[in-house]
Amino acid sequence: MHKVHTVPQRSDIEHAHAVIKPYIHRTPVLSSQSINKITGIELFFKCENFQKIGAFKIRGGTCAALALSDEEKQNGIATHSSGNHAQAVALSAQRLGLKAYIVMPSNAPPVKIAATKGYGAEVTFCDPTLEARESTLAQVVARTGATEIHPYNNYNIITGAATAAKELIEDTEGLDIILAPIGGGGLMSGTALSTRYFLPGAEVIGAEPENVDDAFRSFKAGAMLYNTTTDTIADGLRTNLGEKTFDIILRYVDDIITVSEKEIAEAMRLLWERMKIVVEPSSAVPFAAVLKSKDRFTGKRIGIILSGGNVNLNDLPF
Amino acid sequence: MHKVHTVPQRSDIEHAHAVIKPYIHRTPVLSSQSINKITGIELFFKCENFQKIGAFKIRGGTCAALALSDEEKQNGIATHSSGNHAQAVALSAQRLGLKAYIVMPSNAPPVKIAATKGYGAEVTFCDPTLEARESTLAQVVARTGATEIHPYNNYNIITGAATAAKELIEDTEGLDIILAPIGGGGLMSGTALSTRYFLPGAEVIGAEPENVDDAFRSFKAGAMLYNTTTDTIADGLRTNLGEKTFDIILRYVDDIITVSEKEIAEAMRLLWERMKIVVEPSSAVPFAAVLKSKDRFTGKRIGIILSGGNVNLNDLPF
Repeated sequence: MHKVHTVPQRSDIEHAHAVIKPYIHRTPVLSSQSINKITGIELFFKCENFQKIGAFKIRGGTCAALALSDEEKQNGIATHSSGNHAQAVALSAQRLGLKAYIVMPSNAPPVKIAATKGYGAEVTFCDPTLEARESTLAQVVARTGATEIHPYNNYNIITGAATAAKELIEDTEGLDIILAPIGGGGLMSGTALSTRYFLPGAEVIGAEPENVDDAFRSFKAGAMLYNTTTDTIADGLRTNLGEKTFDIILRYVDDIITVSEKEIAEAMRLLWERMKIVVEPSSAVPFAAVLKSKDRFTGKRIGIILSGGNVNLNDLPF
Repeated sequence: MHKVHTVPQRSDIEHAHAVIKPYIHRTPVLSSQSINKITGIELFFKCENFQKIGAFKIRGGTCAALALSDEEKQNGIATHSSGNHAQAVALSAQRLGLKAYIVMPSNAPPVKIAATKGYGAEVTFCDPTLEARESTLAQVVARTGATEIHPYNNYNIITGAATAAKELIEDTEGLDIILAPIGGGGLMSGTALSTRYFLPGAEVIGAEPENVDDAFRSFKAGAMLYNTTTDTIADGLRTNLGEKTFDIILRYVDDIITVSEKEIAEAMRLLWERMKIVVEPSSAVPFAAVLKSKDRFTGKRIGIILSGGNVNLNDLPF
């Protein structure tokens, strides 16, 4: 894999898809007759909850790790994360025989710490603030010479994330609209690019929790605005956009729909009850947007990226 | 489909499978690398939680309904059930254009009542005792002339249930052992028959909650013994065997393993967390048996029937 230095092109995504293939699952696209009946919409769910590490993040992690030079590879890769990105970087490194250094906040869930260590990563703990995470990561990078892999503001991460929508398009006929959740914007911008390249007639819509609607407000204003809170059950979507992801979203996303915490919980519950699959709250956000704006989608064939399935079963929002 | 009047033969199961095919899903067989790593066992899960109505029961219900004479079909079908069998009979009837009469205890979960009515069945409520259920059903049958479809002590039900293991065997290479949960014994006896016919070298093991271990004790004693309680979270396994299912289990099942309530809950949790699928407690019982007796299964290729995924998300056992 090469380093992608600008907005990923069609050929970048095609190449990335070919080279990461041995390291990822081609996850299934599932439908539910009962959900289609309830909604009057034909829905196709790309199940990245069944992906390795339980989330789409392994796609970008692998794409970024493979793009390192031999010299960079010798020093390994590093990131700060309390969630899925930590495991993606750790597993990508393990599969490629690299060292991984992960900075995690001291209050990260024990199960995620154990999983990250289980992939052979060296974990450094810090205070649970963004400042502490960044300064600790800087120290780790200075000490080890490892290359930082940003969770979303990185064109190789975006290129890898784009392969999920590429597969959804390849495996589903005649989609009219594709939706994805927006957190830092890696999945959303990758989804928008793949839709433009591989299904140019289709609409691309993002979905975001009302409580952390930086992307919605930035999109309307045409300038980056920031969240003032991280207060949402959709723990994967608490971050702000980066300038790389915002630029792509502004150009290639058609619309953004926001949803309430209650709407997210109800959509999540419906997915669990009817489809019998475990998805994390972030995954339910685009489906919540569809349920909220049913009339807009009636009779259409809608593709939704279910981003992951890593959820604390003792802290469900319903 | 013909009526099966004695222990189902290989040809009965093959024929049933062909005729019910348009009415059922061919559910996937899933594996989890992380569960295989934890256990040191290669496990293959037949996901009947993704089946229509969320459980394997639609297989037997369809097989039994299709076997009715034209005269019987005119009067419809009837059963008493608070759970998956009610929905299986209701949906089978709807698909075949028959009337369905379901007796449900007054304390049945509203979601199951709604689902049964949603399939067009006429629901009659009764007190929540076996006596009231049977006497109310007798009244309904006397009034309507409908044919009673027993949930498990019926050779067509057993024949239909057997098609799940047949698919598992067809879709998985080289299984050494197949496990299923035991409640009334319909799924277990069908699984044992399909294994004998389609994979004669493999072992067949049943799994049962310790708290309702009538099958385990009956199997050891060689005579039918009964539960004195229904106190288990595995709500699909609270019933006693019938004489038809007991006879098949005694002859064709190699062993029965019992598990505690705690072991069931832990196995269920592991399936949810690692496989990202929603299964009901009954489904987790065979996996709990494997976890409990790991040494016995090490290095083997094990097939497990996950019987269903209908669970109350507000009353999880973990």
